[in-house]
Amino acid sequence: MIRFNCDYSEGAHPQVLQRLVETNMEQTAGYGEDPHCAHAAELIRSECGRPDADVHFLVGGTQANLTVIAAALRPHQGVIAAQSGHVNVHESGAIEATGHKVLAQPCQDGKLTAEQVRQVVEDHFNDETQEHMVQPKMVYISHPTEVGTLYTKEELEALHQVCRQKGLYLFLDGARLGYGLTAPGTDVTMADVAALCDVFYIGGTKVGTLFGEAVVILHPELKPDFRYLIKQRGGMLAKGRLLGVQFEALFENGLYYEMGRHANEAAAVIRQACQQKGYPFLCPSPTNQQFPILPDEKLPALAKKYAFAHFGKVDDSHSAIRFCTSWATKLEDAQALAQDLLEL
Amino acid sequence: MIRFNCDYSEGAHPQVLQRLVETNMEQTAGYGEDPHCAHAAELIRSECGRPDADVHFLVGGTQANLTVIAAALRPHQGVIAAQSGHVNVHESGAIEATGHKVLAQPCQDGKLTAEQVRQVVEDHFNDETQEHMVQPKMVYISHPTEVGTLYTKEELEALHQVCRQKGLYLFLDGARLGYGLTAPGTDVTMADVAALCDVFYIGGTKVGTLFGEAVVILHPELKPDFRYLIKQRGGMLAKGRLLGVQFEALFENGLYYEMGRHANEAAAVIRQACQQKGYPFLCPSPTNQQFPILPDEKLPALAKKYAFAHFGKVDDSHSAIRFCTSWATKLEDAQALAQDLLEL
Amino acid sequence: MIRFNCDYSEGAHPQVLQRLVETNMEQTAGYGEDPHCAHAAELIRSECGRPDADVHFLVGGTQANLTVIAAALRPHQGVIAAQSGHVNVHESGAIEATGHKVLAQPCQDGKLTAEQVRQVVEDHFNDETQEHMVQPKMVYISHPTEVGTLYTKEELEALHQVCRQKGLYLFLDGARLGYGLTAPGTDVTMADVAALCDVFYIGGTKVGTLFGEAVVILHPELKPDFRYLIKQRGGMLAKGRLLGVQFEALFENGLYYEMGRHANEAAAVIRQACQQKGYPFLCPSPTNQQFPILPDEKLPALAKKYAFAHFGKVDDSHSAIRFCTSWATKLEDAQALAQDLLEL
Amino acid sequence: MIRFNCDYSEGAHPQVLQRLVETNMEQTAGYGEDPHCAHAAELIRSECGRPDADVHFLVGGTQANLTVIAAALRPHQGVIAAQSGHVNVHESGAIEATGHKVLAQPCQDGKLTAEQVRQVVEDHFNDETQEHMVQPKMVYISHPTEVGTLYTKEELEALHQVCRQKGLYLFLDGARLGYGLTAPGTDVTMADVAALCDVFYIGGTKVGTLFGEAVVILHPELKPDFRYLIKQRGGMLAKGRLLGVQFEALFENGLYYEMGRHANEAAAVIRQACQQKGYPFLCPSPTNQQFPILPDEKLPALAKKYAFAHFGKVDDSHSAIRFCTSWATKLEDAQALAQDLLEL
Repeated sequence: MIRFNCDYSEGAHPQVLQRLVETNMEQTAGYGEDPHCAHAAELIRSECGRPDADVHFLVGGTQANLTVIAAALRPHQGVIAAQSGHVNVHESGAIEATGHKVLAQPCQDGKLTAEQVRQVVEDHFNDETQEHMVQPKMVYISHPTEVGTLYTKEELEALHQVCRQKGLYLFLDGARLGYGLTAPGTDVTMADVAALCDVFYIGGTKVGTLFGEAVVILHPELKPDFRYLIKQRGGMLAKGRLLGVQFEALFENGLYYEMGRHANEAAAVIRQACQQKGYPFLCPSPTNQQFPILPDEKLPALAKKYAFAHFGKVDDSHSAIRFCTSWATKLEDAQALAQDLLEL
Repeated sequence: MIRFNCDYSEGAHPQVLQRLVETNMEQTAGYGEDPHCAHAAELIRSECGRPDADVHFLVGGTQANLTVIAAALRPHQGVIAAQSGHVNVHESGAIEATGHKVLAQPCQDGKLTAEQVRQVVEDHFNDETQEHMVQPKMVYISHPTEVGTLYTKEELEALHQVCRQKGLYLFLDGARLGYGLTAPGTDVTMADVAALCDVFYIGGTKVGTLFGEAVVILHPELKPDFRYLIKQRGGMLAKGRLLGVQFEALFENGLYYEMGRHANEAAAVIRQACQQKGYPFLCPSPTNQQFPILPDEKLPALAKKYAFAHFGKVDDSHSAIRFCTSWATKLEDAQALAQDLLEL
Repeated sequence: MIRFNCDYSEGAHPQVLQRLVETNMEQTAGYGEDPHCAHAAELIRSECGRPDADVHFLVGGTQANLTVIAAALRPHQGVIAAQSGHVNVHESGAIEATGHKVLAQPCQDGKLTAEQVRQVVEDHFNDETQEHMVQPKMVYISHPTEVGTLYTKEELEALHQVCRQKGLYLFLDGARLGYGLTAPGTDVTMADVAALCDVFYIGGTKVGTLFGEAVVILHPELKPDFRYLIKQRGGMLAKGRLLGVQFEALFENGLYYEMGRHANEAAAVIRQACQQKGYPFLCPSPTNQQFPILPDEKLPALAKKYAFAHFGKVDDSHSAIRFCTSWATKLEDAQALAQDLLEL
Repeated sequence: MIRFNCDYSEGAHPQVLQRLVETNMEQTAGYGEDPHCAHAAELIRSECGRPDADVHFLVGGTQANLTVIAAALRPHQGVIAAQSGHVNVHESGAIEATGHKVLAQPCQDGKLTAEQVRQVVEDHFNDETQEHMVQPKMVYISHPTEVGTLYTKEELEALHQVCRQKGLYLFLDGARLGYGLTAPGTDVTMADVAALCDVFYIGGTKVGTLFGEAVVILHPELKPDFRYLIKQRGGMLAKGRLLGVQFEALFENGLYYEMGRHANEAAAVIRQACQQKGYPFLCPSPTNQQFPILPDEKLPALAKKYAFAHFGKVDDSHSAIRFCTSWATKLEDAQALAQDLLEL
């Protein structure tokens, strides 16, 4: 059985693990107040071109999302997200458990548009009974999205603009950011993300670390007391330096991007086989997640050899499935899958 | 600088780390649904003599506390704890952030008594206006406590009794359980803990793992849907098997207890030096944390060579400080500190 | 200016107010533990044919909704509601502020169907990753709905069935129940509501009292400790007997139904004028709220004489508006509006 | 049975009720956006000498407390209160249910001192691990306190000073403010309260209205979006003008103070009888609540004729009890009680 069902089947990239081994018996201060975290934060600030950024290391994505949102919003404020957004569907109500409504919007390809955001905000503030409704205050996007798609720089700029005009915070969930920044055809860089968002995070869990997400805060209003919130929400790792050590490994020599490119290449092999075979896609994805639509009858054979995720029936006899590659995917495994798809 | 300020200065015990390295490139299912977690849970159930226990692996202690409490209580219910309890003072309001009051009680040596619990519960239910007050429903104890002390088996039995009689859940925070179960003179075993508590956790972070706490649920009412709560509160590790792998290492060959004994022996070296020197203690601790009271004038010299924690002034010229040992403490470092204390 | 914009423009029905005046200087126990509340609860139990029901009096509708939901659900559970449901749109996130997600469903005429509920529940429990999603546990319906429509007895029975089969609670928001139970053509009685729901409330605020909603709890699991929740959520009126006194007035001599019929008759006068004029309706309502669609150009003239609510544009030149009658509406005012509509 | 057990046994002062009757059939806008609320707010601003104040009318005290605190604090912040404070003991965990810890302090006579506040704040910010503890951000006091005592102007000024210096909000719960401002010997006026607090409320429920508390917000940071919070927490009365009408009655002709003086005079009659009899007091109260300590053996006889509250055993054979007067207390009833006390 070869796993293409998700991008967290293995441990860490060997270089990352090596660092953990090398530093294991160092004695450092706890809770992220150690030299490794300081250095990793510095590397990230530099990567972002934003010496003013606050950088915090958290353990996982849901934790990062709920902590950022709880820290940013007053009780009556909500976060606009695509209906397919991770915060809306796959966090067991984590955002609501912090007291906030997710203002879910219908979406194309997992993406919110600036126009949608503008409409939601204007509809709210134009309504005489606005005080009876949740006030939109933050926009949550994921990049790549949950269905593998990417925003263009122009789209991000438009979202940035509307957020500025309307007094909203723009929050980018970068759980798979490494795969997004290295996708063929993208014009969005880490510095762009840092320039256009108020807060975002750089995902490690799905891109080469054992665990860990680096939250980067740009907007001055979002900075005060963030560490209290990390602690309160259970995200403050006692041995915080484990996060610093891993992010040092990701950003000292471009390993983060190298892993991203590798996964995208492996995904392209699978994508091309599906295209050749004439299978349509749920949406066009240049990143490490591919969502082809296959006849249901073909799935059992495939499932004997490969693990993949069932995304949903699209009609009586076809289903969208997800193949996921990662930094750890062996190219020959992707090629084997491609070959098997062609021969289905 | 040698660190005695806490028990999470280093990474993981080499045997634990070795396991992570060996299993790194395995492909497993995520979120704790992998063979390592299953095996580790089995080892723990066996250790507890409780084949019926549910075992879940979480990343950290505050996270474990808030998740257990949020899962167990209805909104109007609170948790009785010692005033010095971790949930009351050192979790940035994590419990209150889940909506629940900590009913803090004055305490001797960090411990709650069964009699205190009985009084709180009877006072509540005897009051005509009980509905205007938070209803006690859970008792939180830590073992060892935050000041290094231990419950006797008899004391735990009395707490168990009163909780049974009054319909409360007994929850034991075992962040340092390994140091408690191996302390000289204790008559409490892992099986006792499992027999007397409704839910407890076995701490890994402070006893040999990179991170991780094993929550053991005994009471049937506390079992349903616990994984939803883990996910919602941000504690569900994507690569959950990292927790399973580490706890396998702790419990396959008694490593957990071996580490506990080692730390307690190192602590004894320091304790004896203080005793010899005539320094009193905040309270008598047979475990890895020692709280001697020293003249303030002696502290600067000590601080040049050793990191320790300041616990608080006890009078104008004396302070309680904390020396903490762990599985990683070198016996010669403890001996060096002991010598320096004697020569102060 | 004659107000048809809502059903809470005046104070209380004179008979209700009279009771408050008569009982004003009585001395009673506070917090609803007085003879008036006991008597009113008895009247309601009798009206419902459910001697086993728990009856609690709260001040307002949003308060009743949030208290019932907070009391019923565990943290990871959510409430299924129509997208147009009051809990989803018009309570400023009150439900989310208690930590729970509203699982909003697209709807016809403000109503949920049993089939929708079944689908949501089955989709949830069939999903392997169910623990990553909010668990449906309660169904919220309003009767009449926010757009004036009514469930048939058959529809309610179907909802009851699916809730029983799937282990969900059925909660009916009866803010305007008096208008619903007396609408022409309805086959749903108070006893039916009590037989088919697990919890519901009888609205007073919009049907003749100064304020007040009577929460009726049928399901045994929802009864324990409800008064703690009322107090905690700020809904426990110190002079609770004011609620009892008012509900006595409503149910001693059928005043509640009398007021309902009156408002529905006044609404029918307006509806018929719209029909005669050929104005379509947002949806067919036999109750006190009417939602005709008018040309925008006609609205300014109307607005000079009458207050009404703007419900939303339906196309470039037409809007749905709401006319609302109540127990207090003078029939001649409704007739005057009808005449003016005909002459627009 | 004559009730001295609380100050909410009757309905409203006849003049207040008369206003409700007179205005009953007026048609006004809902939710507090009506001329009566506007006028009442204006009267209160004038009474306070603060034309810049925001005034909001809520239904009850717990509701006012939880709404103010939820609106003011970020998630990691807590409110300092006396251990005996209403928010700490008698609101069923309402504050914790909004996510915030009550930082309860031991107290003399129900009062916090400026020195205590200073200490709590300095201890917090001096601690290296401050991020692991709840951050103090608000001070809650009640005036009169729960045990009938009053702050002097000097004490309030000192609290104001320390809050200014430390960046905390000062919040005064005035559930019984009318009895406090008219107590013999007090030097605190409504204008003083408005000058020294950041937010406070003027209690109506216990001082002459059917229900209702007027929240007065002075600090600009606490003003934005407060109405969203009122709605979200279930405190927005549909027929909001009922609150405006009642507060108009209280403040148009000094009725509020007149009622206060009356209750205090009735309380003085009872106090003097106790003093004459040699009964000690829990604490000296010049207001409408008196807490004499009586031999337990005397209580049954007294309880046959009068309702009073049991406050707690002070030793094996004595209990503190509470006699409460109000605007509604008949002077002859107080005199009868006084006589019976003397003859016990």
